Parts: sequence; C-alpha cells; structure tokens
Amino acid sequence: MELDWLLAPPLPETMPRQRVIYHRLREAILSGRLVPGTRLPASRDLAASLKIARNTVLFAYEQLVAEGCLLADRQGTRVAPLPVRPVVRPGRGEAPVAPLQLSARAAAALQPEPAREAAALPFAPGVPDYGAFPFRSWRACLERAWRDAGWRQLGYAAHGGDPGLREAVAGHLTTVRGLPVEAAQIVITSGTQSALDLCARLLGDHGDTAWAENPGYFAARVAFGLAGLRVHDVPVDTEGMSPSEDDWRAHPPRLIMITPSHQYPTGRVMSLPRRLALIERARESGAWIIEDDYDSEFRRAGPAPPALFGLRPDAPVIYVGTFSKTLYPGLRLGYLVLPQAIAADFARAAAQATRAGQGIEQRALADFIRRGYYTAHLRRMRTRYAARQAALRSALRQAFGPCVELSGGEAGLHLVIWLPQGISDTEVAARAAALGLGVRALGSYTRAPMTCNGLVLGYGNLEEGMISEGVRRLALAVHSRDNQAA
Amino acid sequence: MELDWLLAPPLPETMPRQRVIYHRLREAILSGRLVPGTRLPASRDLAASLKIARNTVLFAYEQLVAEGCLLADRQGTRVAPLPVRPVVRPGRGEAPVAPLQLSARAAAALQPEPAREAAALPFAPGVPDYGAFPFRSWRACLERAWRDAGWRQLGYAAHGGDPGLREAVAGHLTTVRGLPVEAAQIVITSGTQSALDLCARLLGDHGDTAWAENPGYFAARVAFGLAGLRVHDVPVDTEGMSPSEDDWRAHPPRLIMITPSHQYPTGRVMSLPRRLALIERARESGAWIIEDDYDSEFRRAGPAPPALFGLRPDAPVIYVGTFSKTLYPGLRLGYLVLPQAIAADFARAAAQATRAGQGIEQRALADFIRRGYYTAHLRRMRTRYAARQAALRSALRQAFGPCVELSGGEAGLHLVIWLPQGISDTEVAARAAALGLGVRALGSYTRAPMTCNGLVLGYGNLEEGMISEGVRRLALAVHSRDNQAA
Repeated sequence: MELDWLLAPPLPETMPRQRVIYHRLREAILSGRLVPGTRLPASRDLAASLKIARNTVLFAYEQLVAEGCLLADRQGTRVAPLPVRPVVRPGRGEAPVAPLQLSARAAAALQPEPAREAAALPFAPGVPDYGAFPFRSWRACLERAWRDAGWRQLGYAAHGGDPGLREAVAGHLTTVRGLPVEAAQIVITSGTQSALDLCARLLGDHGDTAWAENPGYFAARVAFGLAGLRVHDVPVDTEGMSPSEDDWRAHPPRLIMITPSHQYPTGRVMSLPRRLALIERARESGAWIIEDDYDSEFRRAGPAPPALFGLRPDAPVIYVGTFSKTLYPGLRLGYLVLPQAIAADFARAAAQATRAGQGIEQRALADFIRRGYYTAHLRRMRTRYAARQAALRSALRQAFGPCVELSGGEAGLHLVIWLPQGISDTEVAARAAALGLGVRALGSYTRAPMTCNGLVLGYGNLEEGMISEGVRRLALAVHSRDNQAA
Repeated sequence: MELDWLLAPPLPETMPRQRVIYHRLREAILSGRLVPGTRLPASRDLAASLKIARNTVLFAYEQLVAEGCLLADRQGTRVAPLPVRPVVRPGRGEAPVAPLQLSARAAAALQPEPAREAAALPFAPGVPDYGAFPFRSWRACLERAWRDAGWRQLGYAAHGGDPGLREAVAGHLTTVRGLPVEAAQIVITSGTQSALDLCARLLGDHGDTAWAENPGYFAARVAFGLAGLRVHDVPVDTEGMSPSEDDWRAHPPRLIMITPSHQYPTGRVMSLPRRLALIERARESGAWIIEDDYDSEFRRAGPAPPALFGLRPDAPVIYVGTFSKTLYPGLRLGYLVLPQAIAADFARAAAQATRAGQGIEQRALADFIRRGYYTAHLRRMRTRYAARQAALRSALRQAFGPCVELSGGEAGLHLVIWLPQGISDTEVAARAAALGLGVRALGSYTRAPMTCNGLVLGYGNLEEGMISEGVRRLALAVHSRDNQAA
C-alpha cells in the first residue's frame, strides 16, 4: 500500500511530524479515501518506508485507535467501519444538502451600523470622556474587591446581583434621583442592551407588540426583534412619544420603550401630562413601560423631570439605568428597577436567563458608590460636560448663525442641530465622516413616515480644544453641498 | 386652605424638610387630593403657617412648577391641569385594571433550582477549585491591561471580541484541542449561557425545534424556551445522544445541543460513529449542532475524543467553550467557534445583540494565555482533579462496595454514582442536603419517559481532606432510607 502522501509537501510549518501523520490519516479515513476494513502497514514497515521513527507512527495509530478511527487486533491495524460519506464540494458533483445559514430573525441584528472606529472621532454620540475616568480610585476599589474575593464573588452572581451593589444603587437613586426604592427592587444587569433583552423576553411573548420611539434608539429594536416581538414605531414630538388613538387601538402594546428624560436622539423631555397619561393608558391596556434613563445624571437645566417610575403607585413601569455613560461602556454593568409586585420573580428569572457574574466588579462598584467617589465623579463630569456643551453651542451659532435650531441641551452628552430642508443629513454625515468626524444623521434613527433632518453631535469625549476645529469641518461638510450644487 | 398635613408626622428621618413638602405636595396633586386649578397659599403665608423658612416653600413650589405640577402666574400658584385619576387600591373599590405580570415564556426561567449557597457545599457540581485560582498571575495580567487601557478597551467590544483574545483562543484550541481554527472564527461570549442564547436566537426561529439531551443541562432548555424554541428531549445512552428515526421525522431539529466529550450530567462520551452519523444527518436536515465542550480541558483517560467541530469539512457545527470551569464562573468569558461560512455575519449580529464589553478583562485573558499561565494552570489542575477523583472513587467503593456503578470519570469535575432501583435519588439528595452536602439527583436532570437514578458528585471544589467525611455523610443519606423502611 502506497502511503507516501502522509508526508507529502506542503507540510504545515508549526505542526510536529507525528501530528501531521495523525491528521492526514484521520482525514483520509473520515473522507472515505481509506475505506473501512483497509489494512494499514505494520508501524515498523510504515516508519521505514517514510524514513521516520517508529514511535511517530505508533503515536498516530494509538490516537486513532483511541478515537475509534482504527481497530487494532491480532492481525494488525485496520480502518474501522464508520458511517462516512465522501465530502462533496460545491461546484464538483452534487451541491451540499443544506447551506449553512443564520435564522430569519437574525436579520434584526444585521442592520448597518457605524464602524467601531467612529466611536473615537469628534462628535461620536454616546461616548463619555474616557480620559476623565477616575482610574486611580476605581482601581483602588477593584484592588480591595480582589483582596477579599471569596466563592460568592468568583461564582455566579446572586439573584438580582451583588447584595451590596443593589443596596448602593437603591441608595443612590433615592438620594440623587428622588426615587424611593429598595434594594430588593434592583436587578443588576450587564448593561442596557442586556436589560432590554431581559424585558423583551421576561415581559413580552412572541408576536406581542413593542412600541419604539421614532426617531429612536436603534439597539432597542434589535432586542425586540430577536425576542420575536413586533416593533411598532410611534412618533416623537416636542413633548416626547406621542401615540395616537389609532396606535392604541390598532397596535395595542405589550411593551412601551421610552427615553423620557432626554429622548434619544432628539434630546427632548417628555412633559408631565404626557407621562401621567401614558401611565394611565398603559395600566388600562396591560402594557409595560420601559423607562430608559440612560444619561439623566448629566442634567443641567433645572431640576430633573420626575421619573415615570415612582410617579404613581403600582404603575407598570420598569426603570433602566446604566453605568456605561457615567463610568465606561465596557464595564458592562447597569440595573433595572422593578415594581415590588414582580421584583422577586423577575430577579429569579433573570438569574436563570443570564447566569450573570462579575462579582468582583460588582463589589468594587458598590464600594466606589459608598465611598462617595461616584457622586464626586458625576459632579465633576456635570460641570465639565456643561462647559463643553456651552462651548459647542457658541461655536455652532458662530458658524451657522444665531437662528440655527439646537435641541437636547437639558441633559446628556449630545446636542442635535436641525438642518433646513434641502440639506440632506445623511449626505452631510457622509461628507463629515470623510473629514474625520463621528457625527450621525438624525435620519438614520428615523423610520418612515416620520422625517427628521438633523445631526446628532456627541461632545462627551470631545476635548474643548477640538471643538472649534470640529465645527469648522462640520461647516465644511454642510456647505460643500452648496458648492456641488453651484 | 388647610395644609398642616404637609409636615404632619411621621416624617421620614433622612429627608430634609423642603423635600418632604415637595414630595407631599406632589403626591397630593398626582393623587387628585388637590384638584387642578386649586390655588395654593403664597409662599410667605404657607411658611408662616408651617413655621418654616420661606425658602423651604419656595424650593418646593419652584421644583413643582419646573416639573409641570404647578402653574405660576401673576395671581399666584395653582395646581396644573393634569390627567390624573385617584389611585384605586386593591380591596378598596374597584380592582386595578391589569395585574402586573411576567410573560408566559418567563415560566421557562422560573424552574426550581438549587439555592446559591449549595454551590459552596461538598459535592456541588460544576464548581472549580476557587482556592487554586492563580490570583497572583491573573491580577498581574489585569494590572498590565489597566495600565494600557485606551478607548478600545473602555468602549464596547469589537465584533467578535478583543482581537488579541480571539487570536489567543484560536491558538490554544489549535495546539491543545487539535482544532485548527482561525481567530476570525472565534466569537468571545460572556459565558456559556450567553453563547447558547445567541445560538438560539441567531440560528433558530420561533417555533423551531431544539433537541436537548435527556438527561441534560437544564440551563440550555431555559435559553431555548426564552427564545421561543420548542424543546424536544432526546435520550442519552452509553454512546451519547441517541435519536431514533421517529425523533428525526416527527421532531425535525433546527438545533441539536450536545455535550459529546463528557455528557452532562452522565459523563458519557459520544462514540465516533455516533458523531459522524449525527453530522451527516444534521447536514441533510439543515440542522445546527451545538457542541458544548464545557469541561474537556480536564481530561485524564487517554486522548480527548476529536471534537465534532472540524471532524468533517463544512459540518454544521458550532463549538462552545468557556473559562468558567478552567478559571472562575464569575469571570463571564467564553467563546464560540464558527464555520468560516457564517463567522463574519454571526460576529456582527452577536455584537448588535449583546453590545459586549469587558475589554480590559479580555485583554488580560489574552495576556494570561500568551504568557503560558493558562496552560500551566490547566496542567496543575488536571493533576489535582485527577487525584481528587481517584480518592473519591476509592472512598465510594469502600463505602458502597466494589460493584457500585460509577460513570463520568474520563474528564471534568464530577462523577456519577448510579443507585439501585428502590433507592430514590431525589430522596437521597434531599437527605444529603440536610447533612450539608451539595450533591444533586440525576433524576432532577431527567425528563419522562427517560428514567435515571443516581447522584451527581462534584469534586472540583472538594478538599481531599473532606472526601472521606463527605462520603461518610453520603452513605448516611443513602442508608437512612433502609432505616426508615425497617
């Protein structure tokens, strides 16, 4: 039997001889090139014919016997009877039986999105100031958490998360956000996407309708789509999400996803009458309101509007918070606040659904909050972001005139500049990208029949020294269209 | 107007006066106790009548005006017209309109499960040796990762995860597991539950059938149930999952979830003919095989059986690995290995579905693997766990006789001891729990019509000194039934 091909070039560079022989023999057996029953030469003979050590052959034979590819008996070694079929490659002979493909719903998660590199560019929205992150105090908290780590921190997280962190978050929300909540109502999540995902699956069933703001936060639609919910877009006006009677009747919601403190992306604040009406209507129709309060910590104009959660007793509201904007996105810690009635069940189901962990980081964060580092950091960042926004506003008014319409300044890390009809925001955004800017078109958050024409300008990670240069390039991107038209 | 109740006891201890007035006024307005249009006393008069500083009243009024609860005009301050209805408490008057409740599918995640504390008890399955974790070298890697952290590590993870970690995992799998894979085929996950969850949603659609091993890993059923898949149980025999012709015809699978290297919980190894047949059949029927290789790193009896992934070219197999057993569960890092054909799309969809992060930890882990710490730790743990298993086996044989049937010793962190008919494993497990043991009944992993009667004994976190004492208590739990019967 001719087995020269066992060591025929090209040989893989990094693989030892004996593994090459093992791999090639196995491939030959599994592909049917060596048919079941075929007798292989004695190890001594094969070693001699290939001019290699006998042990090299023995290793391969033994491994393949152990795996069940070869059978060894008194007569020697032969190929085991295996249910193999020659591999059919597309284009040669019959086509493969079923092509490898993703599920139909995976399409919801394959929408185009900005390249990751864009997050580092001026005006990229949703990015906090990485440089201002309090590395020293945070790492000191991590150090302490590691020093005391036991099985509770190294194992899976307790239901609802680390008890100390649940306490600390409840305390923070009560003091700073005016939300009188208890630790038992808090479920620690690994960020907002995971929170929305839990809400979609633990509160919604397949075919249920989820209302999304239009324009709105794209990633919420991904979570709902992957959970088999039907997403219904509800327009946002100057007072926030504005459902019509037809929305309520023809598309009764199970979930209503809103960003009432600082609508994403328009930055508008939902009015109190709108909040109260939404709660009443949701309560009547058995819907859950998901209140995403993603960046309300950076509020500057007057007192924060009261959260829907806690506005009315027993309201069907779930409050979503995150440390992505206040600390850093990669931390992957956030939280849900739940009404008492469902808190224990939700925490238990969430624990089984996600098998969360990060016990060390959760403990470090509890420590960070308890020691006052978190509030101090928020205070410092509030001032810093306010200064940045003021500088950006004035640069924009200088470049585009005093009447340019800006919105979204009450809180958060971004401003919206509205463009006059006739200047396409997607075209401006594309030109801005070519000039090295991370600005996004309002239109990319908007679905028909709504139309919005403007630009979302993140300033969280924008050094003040870069603002005037950024606005100069932005003006170029806006005006070069006039040049083209000319 | 009588407003004495604004400061009537009991007053919340930790709340400043002005916030009490604000809260009580707001509550009175939102509950309809103060009806729209009601004029409030001038701040000066109210302050005098409550015997407090005028500023305290002014603060509350201003906050409530800002929120839209009050209107201020030349005539003074009055309650705004708001769409409120008095709150109806259950038991008094009409019932609330729709009770707050979870989705129907949430029931899949509300199965009873062992208390978290059980994870710290002797024989708790699935728990690695926390004490042996290489804290020093791991923390050194974390230190280095923090020192070099930039926006890439602090922001959301790149598609598929940190490029360095994908490289390191691919290298490790090629060298140690004999899986020739490339970094582009790796998607870093936040552990096995998240991996199964991604597979369920990105590979399966609502109503599709997912095959689960019976007995099998409970948490996989949670992931499938929450994704709207129909779970079909397929029996496991001594060669692994053993589907019948009827299973294929009446319950054609979209997903086939298996643990072929060390079936969970029986510990059985899927034979090579079974593996090859499963791949062929899955290919024909357009099914995906999910190969969970959760603890194959701790293999001791002979060479590891070849993974289904890579056994045949273009096989519809997704390989799932985790660092939960090899490092610690709370780390929440694992990985999927994907066929080339879908790797890029899957990585992109997974990034949108999860918005992963943990960039610092991912980098630290890549460093940990590259420096050889990971392989060294595996080697050390393999020896340690092997010694523990040997000690456990001999203690079991001593206590239960030489003929007691044990399985699952080829790899992993647990053994199965099979019980004779007539001794109920659930009853033994309950008695063992009362004696402070974390052992689990095989029956709790099994669904009718299959029956399995035995105990799953984890020894990962079991000090050798505790083994004889643990087995002594276990024998008590088994035998006390004889006493009861007598």
